[in-house]
Amino acid sequence: MNTSEGPREGERLAVFDIGGTDVKAGLLTDAGLSGVRRVPTPGVPGTDRATDLTALIAELAADADAISVVVPGIVDEAAGVVRFAANLGLREEPLRDRLAAATGLPVALGHDIAAVGVAERRLGAARGVDNVLVLPIGTGIAGVAFVDGHRLRAGGYAGEIGHAPVPGGGPCSCGATGCLETVASAAAIARRFSAESGIAAAGAREVAALLDDPRAGAAARRAWDAAIDALTHALRHCVAVLGPELIVIGGGLAAAGPALLDPLTARLHGALSFHRRPAVVAAQLGPDAGLWGAAILGTDLLGLTALPRKDRGPT
Amino acid sequence: MNTSEGPREGERLAVFDIGGTDVKAGLLTDAGLSGVRRVPTPGVPGTDRATDLTALIAELAADADAISVVVPGIVDEAAGVVRFAANLGLREEPLRDRLAAATGLPVALGHDIAAVGVAERRLGAARGVDNVLVLPIGTGIAGVAFVDGHRLRAGGYAGEIGHAPVPGGGPCSCGATGCLETVASAAAIARRFSAESGIAAAGAREVAALLDDPRAGAAARRAWDAAIDALTHALRHCVAVLGPELIVIGGGLAAAGPALLDPLTARLHGALSFHRRPAVVAAQLGPDAGLWGAAILGTDLLGLTALPRKDRGPT
Repeated sequence: MNTSEGPREGERLAVFDIGGTDVKAGLLTDAGLSGVRRVPTPGVPGTDRATDLTALIAELAADADAISVVVPGIVDEAAGVVRFAANLGLREEPLRDRLAAATGLPVALGHDIAAVGVAERRLGAARGVDNVLVLPIGTGIAGVAFVDGHRLRAGGYAGEIGHAPVPGGGPCSCGATGCLETVASAAAIARRFSAESGIAAAGAREVAALLDDPRAGAAARRAWDAAIDALTHALRHCVAVLGPELIVIGGGLAAAGPALLDPLTARLHGALSFHRRPAVVAAQLGPDAGLWGAAILGTDLLGLTALPRKDRGPT
Repeated sequence: MNTSEGPREGERLAVFDIGGTDVKAGLLTDAGLSGVRRVPTPGVPGTDRATDLTALIAELAADADAISVVVPGIVDEAAGVVRFAANLGLREEPLRDRLAAATGLPVALGHDIAAVGVAERRLGAARGVDNVLVLPIGTGIAGVAFVDGHRLRAGGYAGEIGHAPVPGGGPCSCGATGCLETVASAAAIARRFSAESGIAAAGAREVAALLDDPRAGAAARRAWDAAIDALTHALRHCVAVLGPELIVIGGGLAAAGPALLDPLTARLHGALSFHRRPAVVAAQLGPDAGLWGAAILGTDLLGLTALPRKDRGPT
């Protein structure tokens, strides 16, 4: 499969984006990404799901020539090991070798957010930008940074911006205190709004929709402003240390659009001096970004040189 | 000069570390670094000193075969341009080409703190470590980060940790507010101590020496603790985003030794959860680190492959 053109006609890379709730699966061929589907993540949440995941992936990849899997947590791509993934109950799990042994196929293992970043850089909002931070914000917050075109890995430990400290941060499920995620994740915004207003909110988008509501607007504004202040603080730090030209916000929070991006850009730029002033934009690829990233990472890690092209896929 | 062994017998790389007050100069040959001397930076502080610097460097490098210069500020190494250096009054100055035109020699231009980091990684406290942050703390604070063995540049904008925000930070000379440098630089520690105690302190080392003083100890402790809290905050952020295995503190503040490193390590590690827990150590190379780094950067950028060895030099 290591031609200079990527998967040859008839060759198939099975791609998987593993989440705590769902597994997204698809197939990359020379015709693009196809057969995208979603199945419940097997096993019991919080327990070791390596065996069940292996069985599912082996079954779904039965007709493939190679496999690429991305998972959340701390993933050592070079070693093929999941150092720690709370949602999946994995710790020091050599998932790449386990999958290879179970299927007899070449397997690439990567990080789900790194995959989103790789996809946005190859196909989406960050095309051609060498210094860029891609930051999906949903239930949690994690990022991937590219500096000088190099994707920062640090054995899987880089990019954990959601667990960097901000003023006003509270106790975090990770065990630390003050993490960005406790104020600025979509879940944190909804939680704070609901606690203050007594109004249930499924996510940050509902809170954003209430910003001008006569009854709930004040509580919505407080939760929203706290999130933007915290993001501004964390991004200021990233700007100083990484020097990005561009910041790409993804995940559920990006759906708020200008309600998020306009004040965030204004506060961030207003707080900088000699630093670079990165544009702050929304991600472009949507919920299949992780699968596209798995396709690219797998292609790269397995020595294929295919450039997955969005216009060849069904997305 | 591009043999695989670096400068051949008789070949000479003139190296310069330009500061706002002093220029350090030396000569790298196959025998190591020699002739290290210090001369006042020519020209008037805060005005454009490019012409005067060029004349000085051309004079001092008269017998050399190549030149390597490191300067403070925002330096675009690839372009050979000083984007901004407040101390030297330079802005968008193509110093590399100016020096090359004046001398007819190959010239490498780099950043002074990047040079210190490169030297510590090749010859000092960070030898062999692929994920490391080197942070000299003196009158100001700037750092250089290596991730996956790659030195972060971002066109000269990476590593400006001194101008990342921390709780308790004040108005900064850079124009922003809240910068780490306003609380945790050696100058800021001395300034705060002197303002609170009425006792003059030339630097942070004097403040550290008074931590247990019956009269001045309380003020010294407040200034010192504020600096360590601010450093802890900024380093927590760097740990989350960069995943370093090691943090090397240099500059004047590192002279405080365990009074700095012990509480800083304890507070940093106490604030982390799943993150990497980097060791925090003092730099090893001392005040000539920038010259050593200029030697290494020049050797690399000019296509020499010499590995400057400290044991071959007089340091």
